[in-house]
Amino acid sequence: MRMTDLIAKKRDGERLTTEEISEMIRLYTAGEIPDYQMSAMCMAILFRGMDDGEILDLTMSMMRSGETLDLSPIRGVKADKHSTGGVGDKTSLVLCPMVAACGVKIAKMSGRGLGHTGGTIDKLESFPGFVTGISEERFFDNVNRIGIAIAGQTAEVCPADKKLYALRDVTGTVPSIPLIVSSIMSKKLAAGADVIVLDVKCGSGAFMKTPEQARELAAGLTRVGTLAGRKCAAVITDMDEPLGFAVGNALEVKEAIDVLAGRTEAGELLELCLTLGANILTLAGLAEDEAEAREKLKSTIRDGSALKKLAEMVEAQHGDPRAVYDLSLLPAAAVKCEVPSARTGFVSHIEAEDVGLVSMHLGGGRATKESAIDLSVGVVLHKKVGDRVEEGESLGTIHAADAAKAAEAAELLRKCYAFSDEPAEKTPFIKGVVH
Amino acid sequence: MRMTDLIAKKRDGERLTTEEISEMIRLYTAGEIPDYQMSAMCMAILFRGMDDGEILDLTMSMMRSGETLDLSPIRGVKADKHSTGGVGDKTSLVLCPMVAACGVKIAKMSGRGLGHTGGTIDKLESFPGFVTGISEERFFDNVNRIGIAIAGQTAEVCPADKKLYALRDVTGTVPSIPLIVSSIMSKKLAAGADVIVLDVKCGSGAFMKTPEQARELAAGLTRVGTLAGRKCAAVITDMDEPLGFAVGNALEVKEAIDVLAGRTEAGELLELCLTLGANILTLAGLAEDEAEAREKLKSTIRDGSALKKLAEMVEAQHGDPRAVYDLSLLPAAAVKCEVPSARTGFVSHIEAEDVGLVSMHLGGGRATKESAIDLSVGVVLHKKVGDRVEEGESLGTIHAADAAKAAEAAELLRKCYAFSDEPAEKTPFIKGVVH
Repeated sequence: MRMTDLIAKKRDGERLTTEEISEMIRLYTAGEIPDYQMSAMCMAILFRGMDDGEILDLTMSMMRSGETLDLSPIRGVKADKHSTGGVGDKTSLVLCPMVAACGVKIAKMSGRGLGHTGGTIDKLESFPGFVTGISEERFFDNVNRIGIAIAGQTAEVCPADKKLYALRDVTGTVPSIPLIVSSIMSKKLAAGADVIVLDVKCGSGAFMKTPEQARELAAGLTRVGTLAGRKCAAVITDMDEPLGFAVGNALEVKEAIDVLAGRTEAGELLELCLTLGANILTLAGLAEDEAEAREKLKSTIRDGSALKKLAEMVEAQHGDPRAVYDLSLLPAAAVKCEVPSARTGFVSHIEAEDVGLVSMHLGGGRATKESAIDLSVGVVLHKKVGDRVEEGESLGTIHAADAAKAAEAAELLRKCYAFSDEPAEKTPFIKGVVH
Repeated sequence: MRMTDLIAKKRDGERLTTEEISEMIRLYTAGEIPDYQMSAMCMAILFRGMDDGEILDLTMSMMRSGETLDLSPIRGVKADKHSTGGVGDKTSLVLCPMVAACGVKIAKMSGRGLGHTGGTIDKLESFPGFVTGISEERFFDNVNRIGIAIAGQTAEVCPADKKLYALRDVTGTVPSIPLIVSSIMSKKLAAGADVIVLDVKCGSGAFMKTPEQARELAAGLTRVGTLAGRKCAAVITDMDEPLGFAVGNALEVKEAIDVLAGRTEAGELLELCLTLGANILTLAGLAEDEAEAREKLKSTIRDGSALKKLAEMVEAQHGDPRAVYDLSLLPAAAVKCEVPSARTGFVSHIEAEDVGLVSMHLGGGRATKESAIDLSVGVVLHKKVGDRVEEGESLGTIHAADAAKAAEAAELLRKCYAFSDEPAEKTPFIKGVVH
């Protein structure tokens, strides 16, 4: 196999065979195919696309490039969830305890990631003493015993994807549906769950800008997951403004606990968790239909079992479970300041990406793998799109380490808001579900 | 400028500015843009194309990456010719003396090149004593005195193109019109001529397989040359079979001399040289129209002035001019053998590429830059497409260093021929001229 010929084949619109894709990924991972050939191949794939068989082959080849998790020691149906990423996304913190309380097993390996806030395991470290680096034995034992564990990735999962993603990132080849699908699904398949739900974000703050793009990605993800023998569903959700109100690690944990405790009446975060959770329960065979599933999930809030499940997980991973019931035990920033609105009107837009940068600026995110993050800082929005604001009324609260940072962040947050004289029409938060 | 953003820009169908292209080529040549980004850019250009302004910018940037030749010390109109390459292409050997005999100045710097035979300067070394490595001063002096010099490239011309072409060759990004045009024209512009004619080959033995592709390339070449202030024309010619009869260095020199001496009545080689030459003369202002130009060119054969011009050039570059008039002074192979046809019928096709490989097999070409070539060996075809052949009649003569090589080559040559019972319809040899 000559890589130059393979590139030409894809360039000319032909499909690549299972053997060609598998050899290509094997040799690329081994360093025997140079980056300059792989980047040309990625660009050819971006323009020519891949059919489902090719995407499955690429996904499986990348999955096999590293270690995979065998969840068979865990009894019951194992579920996993993935989000394409957005600002203020604390969904896993709410969803996982709820579905675990319904009897689905959550054995989730999570990365820390770079971005505006940390990843889910960073956020969980807001619980004093919480340990994300537990042994595989302990991890399996916890899931069997209490139904849930969320730990940091230890195994070398999908090294081919790591190498390929780093290359795509600097060669303009990120926005290719086949490449995105295989990148996401190789890691999800390696993580071993039977049921996989995907939260595909869509809008100005997301990677997919239009509902059409998001739907195409969602369909690709579920088709490939299904072809690989897993039960899959994808939910397409709005990311034109941040999800919920808090952006920042401990602040998001507090918002998640508020939802699990039933202290939030409705809201998009809860709606998203009910939709994702209902898909998990029905795919897992633990509910007949969506209505029954949603009722089961809601009851975990009413009867306190979801919150209790979170507390059990925190305790099993050496954290202080009392913090679940007493939010004052979570990290808190030294300085809080309000951001008064400069005008009266209706919020027409909040630039999600820029709100994320406010959190980043305060120290809540990680710019490089080595950066330390400040779990206490961030932003809590008070006004969302469609809300009426009076001049001088607070748009949000900045949580900062010192007054200077707070003042800078306040200025940045103000610029994230746009206003109109009439209330803006809100697009539906949940834009579709793909099975 | 971030190269990743530039790639994304071209990927999304936007045009690149003069500054962006110039910086990109400067940084790539300096090794500050890695190959893996440049190959992705080339693939994006392949799919998205470039407008004439972008191609001109790319061409000029590549031209400026190295040394350029200032031909102003030479009086009169300076012309240059380029061929996209084919098998048996000895056009320059005939064309250059003819147009020089008409008063156009030929100051041609030529590379040796890899391929089935050597380049023009290798072929010229068939004249005993001929020197291609002459000083710039001597080169200019020769052109001013006798009107013609063909020398080996000494200056570092277009290093950006060298680097980029090597990358394109292994990343499936060779067949992109904007990239081909800028590669060819950067070198032609650097060579400094006022008039540039291009011979764009088309057919199974050429890089451009269809007349449409060839016409697109021809149009791109002339448009960019004209935008750069040169006078340009491109001739689209057939390369479904080798050009003329001889393939091999000294053998091609002999065929060229036969044409210049008027010993060949008609034929495609002469027709091509008349067409290219007529374009040079009219663009140079030395003929009113094509008819007058062709008459002038033909008269250089009739009155012996073209052959004399070749002899003058050979002498001025330390070669033996008597060889122009006595072909027995040129290198000759030790072994000659005929290749009898295995059947009776009409020649329907001769695979040009494979005839080239016969010459290569005999030692007439260069596989790597360091290879030595045998100037005496090669093939002389006796039958071309459309010709009737009796069983046992010779298809061609192999000129080889020994009998074993000759026998192998004969076997290979026989496989280059295809036959039909009825005469095949011949497509026109000259498929168009683009100004």
